[in-house]
Amino acid sequence: MRESAENSPRFGDSKMQTPCGMILFAGMTQLDLTGPYEVLSRTPGVRVVLLGASRDAVRTEHGLMLTPELSFAESPGLDVLVVPGGWGVNDVLLDGRYLDFVSGAGSRARWVTSVCTGALLLGAAGLLRGYRATTHWGSVQFLAEFGAIPVSDERVVVDRNRITAAGVSAGIDFALLLASKLCDVPSAQQIQLGIEYDPAPPFPGGHPSSSSPEVVLAEERRMSAAMLKRAEIVRMAAQRMNAVG
Amino acid sequence: MRESAENSPRFGDSKMQTPCGMILFAGMTQLDLTGPYEVLSRTPGVRVVLLGASRDAVRTEHGLMLTPELSFAESPGLDVLVVPGGWGVNDVLLDGRYLDFVSGAGSRARWVTSVCTGALLLGAAGLLRGYRATTHWGSVQFLAEFGAIPVSDERVVVDRNRITAAGVSAGIDFALLLASKLCDVPSAQQIQLGIEYDPAPPFPGGHPSSSSPEVVLAEERRMSAAMLKRAEIVRMAAQRMNAVG
Repeated sequence: MRESAENSPRFGDSKMQTPCGMILFAGMTQLDLTGPYEVLSRTPGVRVVLLGASRDAVRTEHGLMLTPELSFAESPGLDVLVVPGGWGVNDVLLDGRYLDFVSGAGSRARWVTSVCTGALLLGAAGLLRGYRATTHWGSVQFLAEFGAIPVSDERVVVDRNRITAAGVSAGIDFALLLASKLCDVPSAQQIQLGIEYDPAPPFPGGHPSSSSPEVVLAEERRMSAAMLKRAEIVRMAAQRMNAVG
Repeated sequence: MRESAENSPRFGDSKMQTPCGMILFAGMTQLDLTGPYEVLSRTPGVRVVLLGASRDAVRTEHGLMLTPELSFAESPGLDVLVVPGGWGVNDVLLDGRYLDFVSGAGSRARWVTSVCTGALLLGAAGLLRGYRATTHWGSVQFLAEFGAIPVSDERVVVDRNRITAAGVSAGIDFALLLASKLCDVPSAQQIQLGIEYDPAPPFPGGHPSSSSPEVVLAEERRMSAAMLKRAEIVRMAAQRMNAVG
């Protein structure tokens, strides 16, 4: 009974399990991580591990605290790397601890993935050069600075072993697809039934192409100052990436 | 800039804010809470507070740790009560600390809500007598024991000030609807755009009516032993509820 409260702990030492590392940092969007976590932690054979620069708890964007299980230094080799996004990604785009870990783990992982603006960290770590990729609709324009080929009309983009998801809630769609690749389609569909993922948003919208122009304008206005700051940081991170080569 | 990492803390003392209490317990399904949290923590005027029997961190169903910000004894009066579900709900259906808090806070709140099998705790606390309600598709049959009118074909059920959501991921649809009631529809749509909630599941399914019969059967088999145990606990909880009157 995978779901039972009487489960044995998932953190076994079995060598049969696929280690899937999810990165934590302050100011991240918690649903970028917790959405995929709900799917991947139910995927047979997958062992999810939450990783941070240290084991200190991080305050996510709107206050929820999340705690790494292991520091980067303690991380096992990863078959799957998952990088979430959020405004806090700005602070890690120039942080050597994050760049080094993501670049190293990503170069060895079987699947290198991101949700939302986690793609910017993959990019800054040099992992998206020449790859089709997506991110939150509001940040797609930054992908090219890292040598990626930006995709703005697909919710989940797969290019060889890179999988990048669009903003926040796209992480659930992404994780079901990833579960099907790590296991099989019927298992992914069983997880989808288990989390009753037959979505029915109460309102139309959720993407600039489906939301009303007034809603898109209001959201763009709300983000505009933060986007100017992000543009500056992305430029610096891209310079650094190109200097590292 | 609501989303900026440079935000002032959400936990202000402003009396203008709507206190929205979300309940934590061991063995809960973390996405039942983290999905709605992402929406409600972005809702203007809403102050989300995570509540537990104590401030001790809880281990959710698949391992992720979540930490209450306040204990029940420290809780402010709540305008909104949100109860998540999960297999761990079995353990709180007969726990006086949870029953007393939920029953008390629920009788005073403006909105009394649940995600997934959190509805069973609302029921055991006597809050669903005579109300139309839903829960995870696998547990709908238990609602009648608590005097509720079970609804199995609606993802979010509103009956007067009770709002109950179907399983796990339905919490996102529920929270957008709740945000529109606490604030207004354009604000809810702006949040929906902010979290890019324009879902596109990679596979059909997610409800017994949309999943293939093989997938439904496999999931029912997986849950069958746990469901027998749940049936027993629900019967005891319903007896207790009826004895309290």
